[in-house]
Amino acid sequence: MVGFREECGVVGVVGDPEAAKLIYLGLYALQHRGQEAAGIITLNDQGEFHGHKAFGLVGDGFTNEILSKIEGRTGIGHNRYSTTGASRMVQNIQPFSFKTPLGSMAIAHNGNLTNADVLRSQLEAQGSIFQSTSDTEIFMHLLAKSKKAELLDRIIEVMSQVKGAYSLLLMTKDRLYALRDPFGFRPLVIGRRGACVVVASETCALELIDAEFEREIAPGEIVEIFPDGFIRSSFPIQSPRKAFCSFEPIYFARPDSKIFGEEIYSLRKRIGANLARESHVDADVVIAIPDSGVPMALGYAAEVNLPMELGLVRNHYVGRTFIEPSQSIRDFGVKLKLNPVGSTLAGKRVVVVDDSLVRGTTSVKILRMLRKAGAKEIHMRLGSPPITHSCFFGVDTPERGQLLAAQQTIDEIREFIGADTLAFLSLPGLQDALGKGNCQNYCYGCFNGDYPEDTCRVIEKQPTDALGGPGLRSGF
Amino acid sequence: MVGFREECGVVGVVGDPEAAKLIYLGLYALQHRGQEAAGIITLNDQGEFHGHKAFGLVGDGFTNEILSKIEGRTGIGHNRYSTTGASRMVQNIQPFSFKTPLGSMAIAHNGNLTNADVLRSQLEAQGSIFQSTSDTEIFMHLLAKSKKAELLDRIIEVMSQVKGAYSLLLMTKDRLYALRDPFGFRPLVIGRRGACVVVASETCALELIDAEFEREIAPGEIVEIFPDGFIRSSFPIQSPRKAFCSFEPIYFARPDSKIFGEEIYSLRKRIGANLARESHVDADVVIAIPDSGVPMALGYAAEVNLPMELGLVRNHYVGRTFIEPSQSIRDFGVKLKLNPVGSTLAGKRVVVVDDSLVRGTTSVKILRMLRKAGAKEIHMRLGSPPITHSCFFGVDTPERGQLLAAQQTIDEIREFIGADTLAFLSLPGLQDALGKGNCQNYCYGCFNGDYPEDTCRVIEKQPTDALGGPGLRSGF
Amino acid sequence: MVGFREECGVVGVVGDPEAAKLIYLGLYALQHRGQEAAGIITLNDQGEFHGHKAFGLVGDGFTNEILSKIEGRTGIGHNRYSTTGASRMVQNIQPFSFKTPLGSMAIAHNGNLTNADVLRSQLEAQGSIFQSTSDTEIFMHLLAKSKKAELLDRIIEVMSQVKGAYSLLLMTKDRLYALRDPFGFRPLVIGRRGACVVVASETCALELIDAEFEREIAPGEIVEIFPDGFIRSSFPIQSPRKAFCSFEPIYFARPDSKIFGEEIYSLRKRIGANLARESHVDADVVIAIPDSGVPMALGYAAEVNLPMELGLVRNHYVGRTFIEPSQSIRDFGVKLKLNPVGSTLAGKRVVVVDDSLVRGTTSVKILRMLRKAGAKEIHMRLGSPPITHSCFFGVDTPERGQLLAAQQTIDEIREFIGADTLAFLSLPGLQDALGKGNCQNYCYGCFNGDYPEDTCRVIEKQPTDALGGPGLRSGF
Amino acid sequence: MVGFREECGVVGVVGDPEAAKLIYLGLYALQHRGQEAAGIITLNDQGEFHGHKAFGLVGDGFTNEILSKIEGRTGIGHNRYSTTGASRMVQNIQPFSFKTPLGSMAIAHNGNLTNADVLRSQLEAQGSIFQSTSDTEIFMHLLAKSKKAELLDRIIEVMSQVKGAYSLLLMTKDRLYALRDPFGFRPLVIGRRGACVVVASETCALELIDAEFEREIAPGEIVEIFPDGFIRSSFPIQSPRKAFCSFEPIYFARPDSKIFGEEIYSLRKRIGANLARESHVDADVVIAIPDSGVPMALGYAAEVNLPMELGLVRNHYVGRTFIEPSQSIRDFGVKLKLNPVGSTLAGKRVVVVDDSLVRGTTSVKILRMLRKAGAKEIHMRLGSPPITHSCFFGVDTPERGQLLAAQQTIDEIREFIGADTLAFLSLPGLQDALGKGNCQNYCYGCFNGDYPEDTCRVIEKQPTDALGGPGLRSGF
Repeated sequence: MVGFREECGVVGVVGDPEAAKLIYLGLYALQHRGQEAAGIITLNDQGEFHGHKAFGLVGDGFTNEILSKIEGRTGIGHNRYSTTGASRMVQNIQPFSFKTPLGSMAIAHNGNLTNADVLRSQLEAQGSIFQSTSDTEIFMHLLAKSKKAELLDRIIEVMSQVKGAYSLLLMTKDRLYALRDPFGFRPLVIGRRGACVVVASETCALELIDAEFEREIAPGEIVEIFPDGFIRSSFPIQSPRKAFCSFEPIYFARPDSKIFGEEIYSLRKRIGANLARESHVDADVVIAIPDSGVPMALGYAAEVNLPMELGLVRNHYVGRTFIEPSQSIRDFGVKLKLNPVGSTLAGKRVVVVDDSLVRGTTSVKILRMLRKAGAKEIHMRLGSPPITHSCFFGVDTPERGQLLAAQQTIDEIREFIGADTLAFLSLPGLQDALGKGNCQNYCYGCFNGDYPEDTCRVIEKQPTDALGGPGLRSGF
Repeated sequence: MVGFREECGVVGVVGDPEAAKLIYLGLYALQHRGQEAAGIITLNDQGEFHGHKAFGLVGDGFTNEILSKIEGRTGIGHNRYSTTGASRMVQNIQPFSFKTPLGSMAIAHNGNLTNADVLRSQLEAQGSIFQSTSDTEIFMHLLAKSKKAELLDRIIEVMSQVKGAYSLLLMTKDRLYALRDPFGFRPLVIGRRGACVVVASETCALELIDAEFEREIAPGEIVEIFPDGFIRSSFPIQSPRKAFCSFEPIYFARPDSKIFGEEIYSLRKRIGANLARESHVDADVVIAIPDSGVPMALGYAAEVNLPMELGLVRNHYVGRTFIEPSQSIRDFGVKLKLNPVGSTLAGKRVVVVDDSLVRGTTSVKILRMLRKAGAKEIHMRLGSPPITHSCFFGVDTPERGQLLAAQQTIDEIREFIGADTLAFLSLPGLQDALGKGNCQNYCYGCFNGDYPEDTCRVIEKQPTDALGGPGLRSGF
Repeated sequence: MVGFREECGVVGVVGDPEAAKLIYLGLYALQHRGQEAAGIITLNDQGEFHGHKAFGLVGDGFTNEILSKIEGRTGIGHNRYSTTGASRMVQNIQPFSFKTPLGSMAIAHNGNLTNADVLRSQLEAQGSIFQSTSDTEIFMHLLAKSKKAELLDRIIEVMSQVKGAYSLLLMTKDRLYALRDPFGFRPLVIGRRGACVVVASETCALELIDAEFEREIAPGEIVEIFPDGFIRSSFPIQSPRKAFCSFEPIYFARPDSKIFGEEIYSLRKRIGANLARESHVDADVVIAIPDSGVPMALGYAAEVNLPMELGLVRNHYVGRTFIEPSQSIRDFGVKLKLNPVGSTLAGKRVVVVDDSLVRGTTSVKILRMLRKAGAKEIHMRLGSPPITHSCFFGVDTPERGQLLAAQQTIDEIREFIGADTLAFLSLPGLQDALGKGNCQNYCYGCFNGDYPEDTCRVIEKQPTDALGGPGLRSGF
Repeated sequence: MVGFREECGVVGVVGDPEAAKLIYLGLYALQHRGQEAAGIITLNDQGEFHGHKAFGLVGDGFTNEILSKIEGRTGIGHNRYSTTGASRMVQNIQPFSFKTPLGSMAIAHNGNLTNADVLRSQLEAQGSIFQSTSDTEIFMHLLAKSKKAELLDRIIEVMSQVKGAYSLLLMTKDRLYALRDPFGFRPLVIGRRGACVVVASETCALELIDAEFEREIAPGEIVEIFPDGFIRSSFPIQSPRKAFCSFEPIYFARPDSKIFGEEIYSLRKRIGANLARESHVDADVVIAIPDSGVPMALGYAAEVNLPMELGLVRNHYVGRTFIEPSQSIRDFGVKLKLNPVGSTLAGKRVVVVDDSLVRGTTSVKILRMLRKAGAKEIHMRLGSPPITHSCFFGVDTPERGQLLAAQQTIDEIREFIGADTLAFLSLPGLQDALGKGNCQNYCYGCFNGDYPEDTCRVIEKQPTDALGGPGLRSGF
């Protein structure tokens, strides 16, 4: 129920004659990370790029006929998050392809640069022409303009210029590069499917296509994947700290994924349990706001030994248009998706568990529906601390003025949304759920304004000879 | 997870200037009853019918512009269930409109006639031309050919000719008729939204549009709804018994609906509890097959005081096409919709709750996925008795040869689907959950082959004068 | 430039494994007879009908994939004329298929019945349900309701009941019937393509598919075509006279077609020459209103030995929408299609030749454009007499009130359209062009109100034995 | 009938509140110059660009709703010529918009650069990233990279760098630039519609929207059009000669247009007359290959006082797909568009006039059809000299190997296409038709390989003060 939107999912495949189909399925599994548009570009045996891009779900925009034309053994794909009109231009759909003095390339990017505006202005002043509004184009221009002779060196140079969050795939005519920013804001995992190597934002994409999870790509790591499945790693950037996005486990990632070293479902149940320990009050029943609140509600209910019930039914058949009569229907938008279950609620003291609260406007409507369905008391419990600051690393947060918790006290919020009691998980409670040994690796900027400072610097490049020279690898 | 398909949902509205929009929303709420196509026909102030029909979800096929052209204060709508190629012709989308010597009419029908073939042959021999493959056309022809002077008498005559299941809306130029077959196989409810009267297959359609539930239309009842909201009932058919479809509460109806006098969510929880009482074995965790198994699993888990967990994650972003690579993916079709949650299952003894088992082919795949995710033991529990007979009253069951339980013993089924133990709810267990006072009103034909015998006969028409003559009502 | 619209073109094919493709091409050649919609139904080797219908041009609505599914060696097709909103329903697209006690049939019809309203009312009173607004359905219902045991006898009975114009194809499971009303209002020709028999509205459809023209089907004739190419004729109806539509050669037919025993292009040139003989005035140049006026203008110019010039250029690239700015453009609608050629017109005395004049609204605009382009004198010449009466036989004429020549004198019309002189071809002049031996076979109702009186009666059926009984022929 | 394809049409409008609608109509009138795609970009009062691009005809891809969103008083549009798969990407549809250090711009271009490859390589080496395969992008990059402070100076610099053909519109936030290359290969005209200024490829675009033709933009001229309709000209490039494309009057331009100082229809009639004078033989009738051959055939027929007849009927109703049966139809492709008129041809000695001959493959088929329709003798006459060389200035000619006249003698061609005699217009005959005083201004490269040498150089910029400084003009 978060009002956040994720900035995309990426998939890369090396070494399968049906690369496009595997990417398609990977994007399908990552559809929760972006529903506005999807694109795939592959490299065929003649060294040509072929691709297709379409608005909407990957399952709508791609057909067997289309995929059969996107031929080749290597390719990358991208899901774009849903957004409004302005950006609805086909040239904003990734992957992007472009030519550089080092040859043709294609790029797919999940994340957000914090110095995009500065870099874009500098590039434009030098005559670079931008086609889209995407940060991703900055990578392209910087790669094209670099004077380094080797592409790996160009990539390292670009990583030293850009600041912010990126999990990025770059396909050239003889290999696929997968890189993750030094802070590791966004996840990126690698797996194998026989001789074929698969890179994806989350493990659920590997599972759908029967690929075995191998490991996560490390913050600051550049992985080169060669046509024969050989993999070489470089760690050119010394990062002062890690800064995994804490909203990935709280909300974005699919509950069956494993990222940042954690099984998401278990982690969310720990959140629910901690939430109960911190703030439980006497009640009759625990319900979740579907679907993101379900694991936390299960953890909560188990902790306090209360029944977890279905309090809200989700309508799964959602089309493209919703028309409201002029005599406006109460809580219309929410009602189209959720309807309360009277027998669960009537006369009950209800604990309602959700993952987080951004603007609070949806919560107002849901709580009103629950109340109308007969709930006697409503105790709202949120599985994350109050969001008081905007994110600059790829989560599409509203401005501070629209963040409810940045403007109001807990009690004011409680009154606004219409709950009898309201409690957020404390930051220590969240950190406990994230794990004692791992919680210092997260960014909590949206909760406390403490953003990671970008003081990365390029370290001396380790000699590639030790790992096997690129001269040995060529010819996709 | 049932392999059954429901035969449609219907909505009727009388007395709202935006009738089409209300019907649209009603169909949206009833989308689970049919996703192949949707249609709306309204009657405008000039006495003309206007309509629109489209394949796919109602939210896809209707726009504001389209709805603004379907003008009028009265109208009916219909959701058609999903089926294969042959029937994908626009002339099969309801409501149907037609002309009779008594004027133009439109009809929307949920159900199935058992004597359709006989009636159709008789009509064709008399020169009637059928445009569609739908049973509904039989109503139209019989209404058109009747010699009775009053439409109500024609309707009664037709009700005496047809046998089987129907919840049906018939719109004429001066009123809306809502009728339900004498057995009451399919639900039909009536509500009010201010001065406006709404009829729908389930109460969830009333809730979305803020209409107050008034009552269910009774088996064998004909309700006439006049433009000003006046309602008149006739009960012309003496029915020997009732025969509510038991799969409506088990599977078809939305859990937040109330039909056949029952709150569906509570009823399903009782099923789960009875199932646990009958057949529980030692286990670590209870999981549901989403979404239909969830309420039963909650009831089961509560009964045995075990944790209910999320064992399978459902992918909500489903497009129109799914492309499989030629190196086929294990359990591909199921995997696109469901993925197991490793941390819930690994090393656990798992009770898996689903509503019913038809062909068993999907269960095989799901259980294999659960096993692969680490489940140590799998105890399959089904919230209904074995289905051993086909349905002739509007549930699209496979032929007996494909009903697993009609061909194999429980133990053979258990082995086929790969469970360690398998148990179905007993018929008495189901009847107990349906309620002591109500369970004799249900049809259990698909469980025991005991179909209701159609020995209905028309009783003498009660004098309409007592209720207010139709002369008083006119002019939509 | 006529404001008339033709009522359709039909094509039938018997005995080619790619019947649907041949029909598609035949409809393509007959596209000038109807652009609103096209449909094809075929009969496959299993005796099943398959079909497809689409709005728009046949070249837009049918693909190779679609045609490959419309399998079979026999089939019929239909082009529907362009009309407005009300009729834009897919169930109005022909061919129609229907079931009768004698089996399944499909029908395609060009023409218009004059007693349609009476027949429809009678049928509705008997309980027949109509799905479309088409006269064609009357044939279907009458055929279905007839009590005759043999289909041929049913057809004869129906021909005795209906009055008006029809060139009609009826496909059953073992043969194709092609029939033409006793007056022969609309054309219908038959040809052969190897073993395959082709029936079509005009010869241009035969030419495109390399079929050899054999003969025209005679007024009142029923042709039965069997799967092996055998043909049997019946002439059950004694017709008092013939009544070919004179607008077929004047306007509807393609200039390269041969119908009613005439080559249309030559006939139109004779019209032009007669027009010149009757009403030529001193002028510098002859121009045509494209495209229908071109042959007449060529005939006119040759007769008076004046240069024929291109006075108006037609824009061939016409899309679906035309948007006008709010500061309205002078003569906008016409200008989108035609633009004057300045060098042809400037300072010239111009004879403008068109085929006919219906409402005159387009002529006003064209003449104003010619004047603005510099024409010094404009002498409008029309290749048909003034249209003073509506047509009831399948030409979509406006009501009399909108027929300019029914309301105004020649001189008033001249002034209205802005010509210096105006002349229509005389009726004798037209008859002379239609041919001394043939002109009495035409209907001139729209020029003189003298409609053919329907006094047809069925003559005794000739014994079929002499020609070979139907028992010998079966099994498409 | 030429196998050539034109490279686009352009329209620009300054100073009308419905600029997009006027551009739409201008593109509609120029549709013959390109049917693959169309695009419009406007500048609204807030200084923002809005646009829409669509494949297909402008009348198909743009609706009233779309145009109402492309708001503003200034805009440019572009028609793209039809081509094959590779280029069918939306990013290849013009106008292109881009940002430079001097602000946002949009560009629409008709023509072809001869040094595109060299310039593109240089730009790529400097890190410029190209998004399309279009020459037009070269203008964009050069404009973006120029170091000049004033845009006019940048434009002049770019004109000194590029070689080849271009008629180009460049829209900025405060004016519209219209420029034509120093040779003037492609036409570009300017007109006024009240206070609004219109620029277009041909005058027929002005006529459709009631704009008054003012003059042609001169070779090498840069016209700046300000929001208030003020116009300023610069002639920065000294051109050694002019080089109008001779195929513009022969084939590309619409016959009702006036370009290169000539009325096209009259010019084509002169071509026909010269052709007759040079090579007439005894014959019965003159026919044209529609539509491009019509004016030449009229000129030819008048010169020899023979009747011009309709020998081939063109099918105007052309959809998107044409399906051929597997038993292939003789001359299928041509037959779909043209059908011979038997009565014109049977037993006749026929002069067939067409504008030119490229590959000859279509002529073979047409002549075979004419022969089959009964033509006794066929005398093929072409209104241009043999095409022996490819074009590098924007006409999409085949390579020399596919130019029939580059490979074969006249007599070999005659035999190949199946004519009894064959004659091309001589080069002097063409030049005579183009006009004594004007013919030296044309390029005849495709006839004689004598391409204009590019030795242009920038002359010193004239002081703009004399004409009124740009400081006086701002704020669209």
